[in-house]
Amino acid sequence: MVARTGIELDGVQARTGGRSARVREAVLSAVRQELMEDGYAGLSHIAVGRRAGVDPATVYRRWPSRSRLAVDAIIELAENAVPLPDTGQLESDLMALHKSVSALLADERTLRLFQAFSAASIEQDPDVSEALRAFWRRRISAATVVFDRAADRGEIERPRRPGELIEQLVAPIYFRALVTRAPLDRHLTNHSVARVRSLVPM
Amino acid sequence: MVARTGIELDGVQARTGGRSARVREAVLSAVRQELMEDGYAGLSHIAVGRRAGVDPATVYRRWPSRSRLAVDAIIELAENAVPLPDTGQLESDLMALHKSVSALLADERTLRLFQAFSAASIEQDPDVSEALRAFWRRRISAATVVFDRAADRGEIERPRRPGELIEQLVAPIYFRALVTRAPLDRHLTNHSVARVRSLVPM
Repeated sequence: MVARTGIELDGVQARTGGRSARVREAVLSAVRQELMEDGYAGLSHIAVGRRAGVDPATVYRRWPSRSRLAVDAIIELAENAVPLPDTGQLESDLMALHKSVSALLADERTLRLFQAFSAASIEQDPDVSEALRAFWRRRISAATVVFDRAADRGEIERPRRPGELIEQLVAPIYFRALVTRAPLDRHLTNHSVARVRSLVPM
Repeated sequence: MVARTGIELDGVQARTGGRSARVREAVLSAVRQELMEDGYAGLSHIAVGRRAGVDPATVYRRWPSRSRLAVDAIIELAENAVPLPDTGQLESDLMALHKSVSALLADERTLRLFQAFSAASIEQDPDVSEALRAFWRRRISAATVVFDRAADRGEIERPRRPGELIEQLVAPIYFRALVTRAPLDRHLTNHSVARVRSLVPM
Protein backbone atom coordinates (compact mmCIF):
# COMPACT_ATOMS: atom_id res chain seq x y z
CA MET A 1 0.00 0.00 0.00
CA VAL A 2 1.32 3.40 -0.96
CA ALA A 3 0.70 6.66 0.89
CA ARG A 4 -2.03 8.30 -1.15
CA THR A 5 -3.71 10.83 1.03
CA GLY A 6 -1.87 13.87 -0.28
CA ILE A 7 -2.40 15.35 3.16
CA GLU A 8 0.90 15.74 4.91
CA LEU A 9 0.18 17.70 8.01
CA ASP A 10 3.81 18.48 8.63
CA GLY A 11 4.38 19.62 5.07
CA VAL A 12 6.71 16.75 4.16
CA GLN A 13 5.65 15.05 0.95
CA ALA A 14 6.13 11.28 1.19
CA ARG A 15 7.91 9.75 -1.79
CA THR A 16 6.59 6.41 -2.93
CA GLY A 17 9.03 3.73 -1.88
CA GLY A 18 11.30 6.13 0.02
CA ARG A 19 12.22 5.75 3.67
CA SER A 20 9.84 8.54 4.57
CA ALA A 21 6.95 6.68 2.92
CA ARG A 22 7.88 3.44 4.71
CA VAL A 23 7.96 5.18 8.09
CA ARG A 24 4.64 6.82 7.32
CA GLU A 25 3.05 3.53 6.38
CA ALA A 26 4.39 1.71 9.45
CA VAL A 27 3.22 4.50 11.77
CA LEU A 28 -0.27 4.88 10.30
CA SER A 29 -0.78 1.13 10.30
CA ALA A 30 0.28 1.02 13.97
CA VAL A 31 -2.12 3.87 14.76
CA ARG A 32 -5.00 1.92 13.21
CA GLN A 33 -4.13 -1.18 15.23
CA GLU A 34 -3.91 0.82 18.44
CA LEU A 35 -7.22 2.58 17.77
CA MET A 36 -8.97 -0.68 16.98
CA GLU A 37 -7.72 -2.25 20.19
CA ASP A 38 -8.00 0.64 22.64
CA GLY A 39 -9.93 3.44 20.94
CA TYR A 40 -8.86 7.06 20.79
CA ALA A 41 -8.64 7.50 24.56
CA GLY A 42 -5.79 4.98 24.69
CA LEU A 43 -3.75 6.32 21.76
CA SER A 44 -0.17 7.35 22.59
CA HIS A 45 2.86 8.31 20.50
CA ILE A 46 5.04 5.95 22.52
CA ALA A 47 2.86 2.88 21.96
CA VAL A 48 2.55 3.75 18.27
CA GLY A 49 6.31 4.15 17.90
CA ARG A 50 6.94 0.85 19.69
CA ARG A 51 4.47 -1.03 17.52
CA ALA A 52 5.73 0.56 14.30
CA GLY A 53 9.42 0.07 15.17
CA VAL A 54 9.93 3.81 14.80
CA ASP A 55 11.60 6.18 17.26
CA PRO A 56 8.79 7.94 19.18
CA ALA A 57 10.63 11.23 18.62
CA THR A 58 10.11 10.76 14.89
CA VAL A 59 6.44 10.09 15.46
CA TYR A 60 6.12 13.24 17.57
CA ARG A 61 7.99 15.32 15.02
CA ARG A 62 5.82 14.35 12.07
CA TRP A 63 2.50 14.08 13.96
CA PRO A 64 2.68 16.56 16.85
CA SER A 65 -0.69 15.57 18.33
CA ARG A 66 -2.80 12.45 18.82
CA SER A 67 -5.56 13.94 16.73
CA ARG A 68 -3.20 14.36 13.75
CA LEU A 69 -2.12 10.75 14.07
CA ALA A 70 -5.73 9.56 14.16
CA VAL A 71 -6.91 11.73 11.31
CA ASP A 72 -4.05 10.78 8.98
CA ALA A 73 -4.48 7.07 9.75
CA ILE A 74 -8.18 7.08 9.06
CA ILE A 75 -8.00 9.25 5.95
CA GLU A 76 -5.63 6.71 4.47
CA LEU A 77 -7.99 3.86 5.33
CA ALA A 78 -11.06 5.62 3.91
CA GLU A 79 -9.22 6.32 0.65
CA ASN A 80 -8.04 2.77 0.18
CA ALA A 81 -11.04 0.82 1.48
CA VAL A 82 -13.68 2.48 -0.69
CA PRO A 83 -12.65 2.35 -4.34
CA LEU A 84 -14.64 4.46 -6.80
CA PRO A 85 -16.72 2.09 -8.93
CA ASP A 86 -16.97 2.19 -12.74
CA THR A 87 -19.42 -0.54 -13.75
CA GLY A 88 -20.83 1.15 -16.82
CA GLN A 89 -24.22 1.91 -15.24
CA LEU A 90 -25.28 4.45 -12.63
CA GLU A 91 -27.41 2.15 -10.52
CA SER A 92 -24.75 -0.52 -10.17
CA ASP A 93 -22.13 2.16 -9.48
CA LEU A 94 -24.28 3.52 -6.62
CA MET A 95 -24.87 -0.03 -5.40
CA ALA A 96 -21.13 -0.80 -5.39
CA LEU A 97 -20.35 2.42 -3.55
CA HIS A 98 -23.04 1.77 -0.95
CA LYS A 99 -21.85 -1.79 -0.42
CA SER A 100 -18.21 -0.73 0.03
CA VAL A 101 -19.06 1.84 2.68
CA SER A 102 -21.46 -0.58 4.41
CA ALA A 103 -18.81 -3.30 4.51
CA LEU A 104 -16.29 -0.85 5.94
CA LEU A 105 -18.60 0.25 8.77
CA ALA A 106 -20.09 -3.18 9.47
CA ASP A 107 -16.71 -4.14 10.91
CA GLU A 108 -16.72 -3.23 14.63
CA ARG A 109 -12.98 -2.63 14.56
CA THR A 110 -13.24 -0.17 11.70
CA LEU A 111 -16.16 1.45 13.48
CA ARG A 112 -13.87 2.19 16.42
CA LEU A 113 -11.59 3.99 13.99
CA PHE A 114 -14.41 6.20 12.81
CA GLN A 115 -15.39 7.00 16.38
CA ALA A 116 -11.78 8.01 17.00
CA PHE A 117 -11.97 10.09 13.83
CA SER A 118 -15.05 11.78 15.20
CA ALA A 119 -13.48 12.36 18.62
CA ALA A 120 -10.31 13.75 17.02
CA SER A 121 -12.24 16.07 14.77
CA ILE A 122 -13.77 18.12 17.54
CA GLU A 123 -10.55 18.75 19.39
CA GLN A 124 -9.43 22.33 19.18
CA ASP A 125 -6.84 21.85 16.45
CA PRO A 126 -7.70 23.99 13.42
CA ASP A 127 -5.16 22.19 11.19
CA VAL A 128 -6.76 18.84 11.92
CA SER A 129 -10.27 20.13 11.43
CA GLU A 130 -9.30 21.69 8.12
CA ALA A 131 -7.46 18.55 6.94
CA LEU A 132 -10.54 16.52 7.79
CA ARG A 133 -12.94 18.85 6.03
CA ALA A 134 -10.67 19.04 2.98
CA PHE A 135 -10.40 15.27 2.86
CA TRP A 136 -14.18 14.78 2.86
CA ARG A 137 -14.81 17.57 0.36
CA ARG A 138 -12.28 15.92 -1.97
CA ARG A 139 -13.61 12.44 -1.29
CA ILE A 140 -17.27 13.29 -1.87
CA SER A 141 -16.38 15.34 -4.91
CA ALA A 142 -14.36 12.43 -6.33
CA ALA A 143 -17.34 10.09 -5.90
CA THR A 144 -19.55 12.35 -8.02
CA VAL A 145 -17.66 10.99 -11.03
CA VAL A 146 -20.36 8.26 -11.13
CA PHE A 147 -22.90 10.94 -12.11
CA ASP A 148 -20.52 12.53 -14.64
CA ARG A 149 -19.93 9.20 -16.36
CA ALA A 150 -23.65 8.40 -16.41
CA ALA A 151 -24.34 11.82 -17.94
CA ASP A 152 -21.59 11.26 -20.52
CA ARG A 153 -23.23 7.95 -21.44
CA GLY A 154 -26.56 9.76 -21.87
CA GLU A 155 -28.09 7.72 -19.05
CA ILE A 156 -29.11 10.77 -16.98
CA GLU A 157 -28.97 14.55 -16.97
CA ARG A 158 -26.10 15.91 -14.95
CA PRO A 159 -27.64 16.58 -11.49
CA ARG A 160 -27.29 19.82 -9.58
CA ARG A 161 -25.42 19.38 -6.30
CA PRO A 162 -24.12 15.87 -7.06
CA GLY A 163 -22.06 15.92 -3.84
CA GLU A 164 -25.25 16.20 -1.79
CA LEU A 165 -26.61 13.14 -3.60
CA ILE A 166 -23.51 11.21 -2.55
CA GLU A 167 -24.12 12.40 1.02
CA GLN A 168 -27.77 11.33 0.72
CA LEU A 169 -26.54 7.90 -0.41
CA VAL A 170 -23.94 7.19 2.28
CA ALA A 171 -25.11 9.28 5.26
CA PRO A 172 -27.70 6.69 6.41
CA ILE A 173 -24.92 4.09 6.64
CA TYR A 174 -22.92 6.29 9.02
CA PHE A 175 -26.11 7.27 10.89
CA ARG A 176 -26.96 3.61 11.52
CA ALA A 177 -23.40 2.54 12.32
CA LEU A 178 -22.52 5.45 14.60
CA VAL A 179 -25.88 6.42 16.07
CA THR A 180 -28.91 4.16 15.79
CA ARG A 181 -27.14 0.78 15.43
CA ALA A 182 -29.80 -0.35 12.95
CA PRO A 183 -28.62 -3.06 10.52
CA LEU A 184 -26.44 -2.33 7.48
CA ASP A 185 -28.16 -4.85 5.24
CA ARG A 186 -29.12 -5.31 1.61
CA HIS A 187 -32.51 -3.68 2.23
CA LEU A 188 -30.77 -0.46 3.21
CA THR A 189 -28.57 -0.70 0.12
CA ASN A 190 -31.41 -1.44 -2.28
CA HIS A 191 -33.78 1.19 -0.92
CA SER A 192 -31.13 3.89 -0.56
CA VAL A 193 -29.88 3.35 -4.11
CA ALA A 194 -33.43 3.39 -5.48
CA ARG A 195 -34.21 6.64 -3.67
CA VAL A 196 -31.04 8.43 -4.76
CA ARG A 197 -31.47 7.14 -8.31
CA SER A 198 -34.99 8.58 -8.36
CA LEU A 199 -33.62 12.00 -7.34
CA VAL A 200 -31.47 12.21 -10.48
CA PRO A 201 -33.14 13.81 -13.52
CA MET A 202 -33.47 11.45 -16.51
CA MET B 1 -38.39 18.32 33.25
CA VAL B 2 -39.93 14.93 33.85
CA ALA B 3 -38.27 11.57 33.18
CA ARG B 4 -39.85 10.53 29.89
CA THR B 5 -37.63 7.92 28.36
CA GLY B 6 -39.59 4.90 29.49
CA ILE B 7 -36.29 3.04 29.49
CA GLU B 8 -35.33 2.10 32.99
CA LEU B 9 -32.39 -0.18 32.64
CA ASP B 10 -32.64 -1.44 36.20
CA GLY B 11 -36.35 -2.12 35.87
CA VAL B 12 -37.38 0.60 38.36
CA GLN B 13 -40.09 2.79 36.89
CA ALA B 14 -39.57 6.43 37.84
CA ARG B 15 -42.67 8.13 39.28
CA THR B 16 -43.21 11.69 38.17
CA GLY B 17 -42.39 13.98 41.05
CA GLY B 18 -41.23 11.15 43.33
CA ARG B 19 -37.84 10.95 44.98
CA SER B 20 -36.76 8.32 42.48
CA ALA B 21 -37.57 10.68 39.61
CA ARG B 22 -35.68 13.54 41.26
CA VAL B 23 -32.60 11.36 41.77
CA ARG B 24 -32.83 10.19 38.18
CA GLU B 25 -33.05 13.73 36.86
CA ALA B 26 -30.16 14.97 39.00
CA VAL B 27 -27.96 12.04 37.97
CA LEU B 28 -28.70 12.24 34.23
CA SER B 29 -28.18 15.98 34.22
CA ALA B 30 -24.83 15.47 35.98
CA VAL B 31 -23.87 12.81 33.43
CA ARG B 32 -24.55 15.25 30.58
CA GLN B 33 -22.44 17.95 32.24
CA GLU B 34 -19.58 15.51 32.81
CA LEU B 35 -19.75 14.21 29.24
CA MET B 36 -19.78 17.73 27.81
CA GLU B 37 -16.74 18.70 29.86
CA ASP B 38 -14.62 15.56 29.70
CA GLY B 39 -16.17 13.22 27.13
CA TYR B 40 -16.94 9.57 27.65
CA ALA B 41 -13.38 8.59 28.58
CA GLY B 42 -13.56 10.77 31.70
CA LEU B 43 -16.98 9.62 32.92
CA SER B 44 -17.03 8.13 36.43
CA HIS B 45 -19.81 7.15 38.85
CA ILE B 46 -18.06 8.97 41.66
CA ALA B 47 -17.81 12.30 39.83
CA VAL B 48 -21.42 11.97 38.69
CA GLY B 49 -22.62 11.24 42.23
CA ARG B 50 -20.64 14.18 43.61
CA ARG B 51 -22.02 16.60 41.02
CA ALA B 52 -25.60 15.32 41.44
CA GLY B 53 -25.45 15.31 45.24
CA VAL B 54 -26.34 11.61 45.19
CA ASP B 55 -24.56 8.77 46.99
CA PRO B 56 -22.31 7.08 44.39
CA ALA B 57 -23.60 3.71 45.66
CA THR B 58 -27.07 4.70 44.48
CA VAL B 59 -25.67 5.69 41.09
CA TYR B 60 -23.88 2.32 40.79
CA ARG B 61 -26.99 0.41 41.84
CA ARG B 62 -29.31 2.00 39.28
CA TRP B 63 -26.75 2.37 36.46
CA PRO B 64 -24.24 -0.48 36.90
CA SER B 65 -21.98 0.65 34.02
CA ARG B 66 -20.71 3.87 32.47
CA SER B 67 -22.34 2.98 29.19
CA ARG B 68 -25.78 2.72 30.84
CA LEU B 69 -25.29 6.11 32.42
CA ALA B 70 -24.31 7.66 29.10
CA VAL B 71 -27.08 6.01 27.09
CA ASP B 72 -29.83 6.98 29.53
CA ALA B 73 -28.59 10.57 29.76
CA ILE B 74 -28.48 11.02 26.01
CA ILE B 75 -31.76 9.30 25.30
CA GLU B 76 -33.44 11.74 27.64
CA LEU B 77 -31.79 14.69 25.89
CA ALA B 78 -32.73 13.48 22.41
CA GLU B 79 -36.35 13.02 23.44
CA ASN B 80 -36.68 16.45 24.97
CA ALA B 81 -34.57 18.53 22.57
CA VAL B 82 -36.29 17.46 19.34
CA PRO B 83 -40.05 17.98 19.63
CA LEU B 84 -42.23 16.45 16.92
CA PRO B 85 -43.61 19.30 14.79
CA ASP B 86 -47.24 19.72 13.77
CA THR B 87 -47.41 22.81 11.55
CA GLY B 88 -50.27 21.68 9.36
CA GLN B 89 -48.09 21.12 6.26
CA LEU B 90 -45.61 18.37 5.41
CA GLU B 91 -42.87 20.60 4.05
CA SER B 92 -42.83 22.89 7.08
CA ASP B 93 -42.98 19.87 9.41
CA LEU B 94 -39.89 18.39 7.70
CA MET B 95 -38.21 21.79 7.85
CA ALA B 96 -38.91 22.14 11.58
CA LEU B 97 -37.63 18.63 12.28
CA HIS B 98 -34.46 19.23 10.26
CA LYS B 99 -33.82 22.54 12.01
CA SER B 100 -34.27 21.04 15.51
CA VAL B 101 -31.80 18.24 14.85
CA SER B 102 -29.34 20.66 13.18
CA ALA B 103 -29.51 23.04 16.14
CA LEU B 104 -28.93 20.15 18.54
CA LEU B 105 -25.82 18.95 16.70
CA ALA B 106 -24.45 22.40 15.86
CA ASP B 107 -23.66 22.77 19.57
CA GLU B 108 -20.14 21.37 20.17
CA ARG B 109 -21.07 20.38 23.71
CA THR B 110 -24.06 18.36 22.57
CA LEU B 111 -21.89 16.86 19.87
CA ARG B 112 -19.61 15.48 22.58
CA LEU B 113 -22.64 13.79 24.08
CA PHE B 114 -23.43 12.08 20.80
CA GLN B 115 -19.86 10.92 20.46
CA ALA B 116 -20.13 9.44 23.94
CA PHE B 117 -23.39 7.85 22.85
CA SER B 118 -21.60 6.34 19.91
CA ALA B 119 -18.67 5.14 22.02
CA ALA B 120 -21.03 3.65 24.61
CA SER B 121 -23.06 1.86 21.98
CA ILE B 122 -20.27 -0.36 20.78
CA GLU B 123 -19.20 -1.57 24.19
CA GLN B 124 -20.04 -5.19 24.78
CA ASP B 125 -23.17 -4.62 26.82
CA PRO B 126 -26.17 -6.22 25.10
CA ASP B 127 -28.69 -4.44 27.36
CA VAL B 128 -27.27 -1.07 26.42
CA SER B 129 -27.14 -1.89 22.73
CA GLU B 130 -30.72 -3.08 22.80
CA ALA B 131 -31.93 -0.04 24.79
CA LEU B 132 -30.23 2.18 22.23
CA ARG B 133 -31.69 0.37 19.22
CA ALA B 134 -35.15 0.34 20.79
CA PHE B 135 -34.92 4.05 21.53
CA TRP B 136 -34.06 4.93 17.93
CA ARG B 137 -36.66 2.60 16.44
CA ARG B 138 -39.27 4.25 18.64
CA ARG B 139 -37.97 7.74 17.97
CA ILE B 140 -37.84 7.35 14.17
CA SER B 141 -41.19 5.64 14.15
CA ALA B 142 -42.69 8.49 16.22
CA ALA B 143 -41.38 11.05 13.72
CA THR B 144 -43.20 9.36 10.84
CA VAL B 145 -46.39 10.90 12.26
CA VAL B 146 -45.63 13.88 9.99
CA PHE B 147 -46.34 11.64 6.97
CA ASP B 148 -49.47 10.17 8.57
CA ARG B 149 -50.89 13.60 9.24
CA ALA B 150 -50.06 14.80 5.72
CA ALA B 151 -51.78 11.71 4.29
CA ASP B 152 -54.80 12.32 6.53
CA ARG B 153 -54.98 15.88 5.19
CA GLY B 154 -54.89 14.49 1.65
CA GLU B 155 -51.59 16.29 0.98
CA ILE B 156 -49.70 13.13 0.00
CA GLU B 157 -50.14 9.40 -0.38
CA ARG B 158 -48.92 7.48 2.64
CA PRO B 159 -45.31 6.52 1.72
CA ARG B 160 -43.90 3.04 2.03
CA ARG B 161 -41.06 2.84 4.55
CA PRO B 162 -41.68 6.26 6.14
CA GLY B 163 -39.01 5.55 8.76
CA GLU B 164 -36.38 5.35 6.03
CA LEU B 165 -37.51 8.75 4.76
CA ILE B 166 -36.96 10.18 8.24
CA GLU B 167 -33.48 8.61 8.19
CA GLN B 168 -32.89 10.10 4.72
CA LEU B 169 -33.87 13.50 6.16
CA VAL B 170 -31.74 13.55 9.30
CA ALA B 171 -28.81 11.23 8.48
CA PRO B 172 -26.88 13.90 6.54
CA ILE B 173 -26.96 16.13 9.63
CA TYR B 174 -25.32 13.43 11.75
CA PHE B 175 -22.92 12.56 8.89
CA ARG B 176 -21.74 16.17 8.68
CA ALA B 177 -21.61 16.74 12.45
CA LEU B 178 -19.89 13.48 13.37
CA VAL B 179 -17.87 12.68 10.25
CA THR B 180 -17.26 15.29 7.56
CA ARG B 181 -17.61 18.48 9.66
CA ALA B 182 -19.31 20.19 6.71
CA PRO B 183 -21.63 23.06 7.74
CA LEU B 184 -25.12 22.50 9.16
CA ASP B 185 -26.66 25.47 7.38
CA ARG B 186 -29.94 26.50 5.79
CA HIS B 187 -28.78 25.18 2.41
CA LEU B 188 -28.55 21.69 3.87
CA THR B 189 -32.00 22.10 5.44
CA ASN B 190 -33.63 23.47 2.29
CA HIS B 191 -32.10 20.94 -0.09
CA SER B 192 -32.62 17.94 2.19
CA VAL B 193 -36.26 18.81 2.78
CA ALA B 194 -36.85 19.34 -0.95
CA ARG B 195 -35.26 15.98 -1.77
CA VAL B 196 -37.18 14.02 0.85
CA ARG B 197 -40.41 15.82 -0.10
CA SER B 198 -39.85 14.77 -3.72
CA LEU B 199 -39.52 11.13 -2.64
CA VAL B 200 -43.06 11.11 -1.21
CA PRO B 201 -45.84 10.12 -3.65
CA MET B 202 -48.40 12.87 -4.26
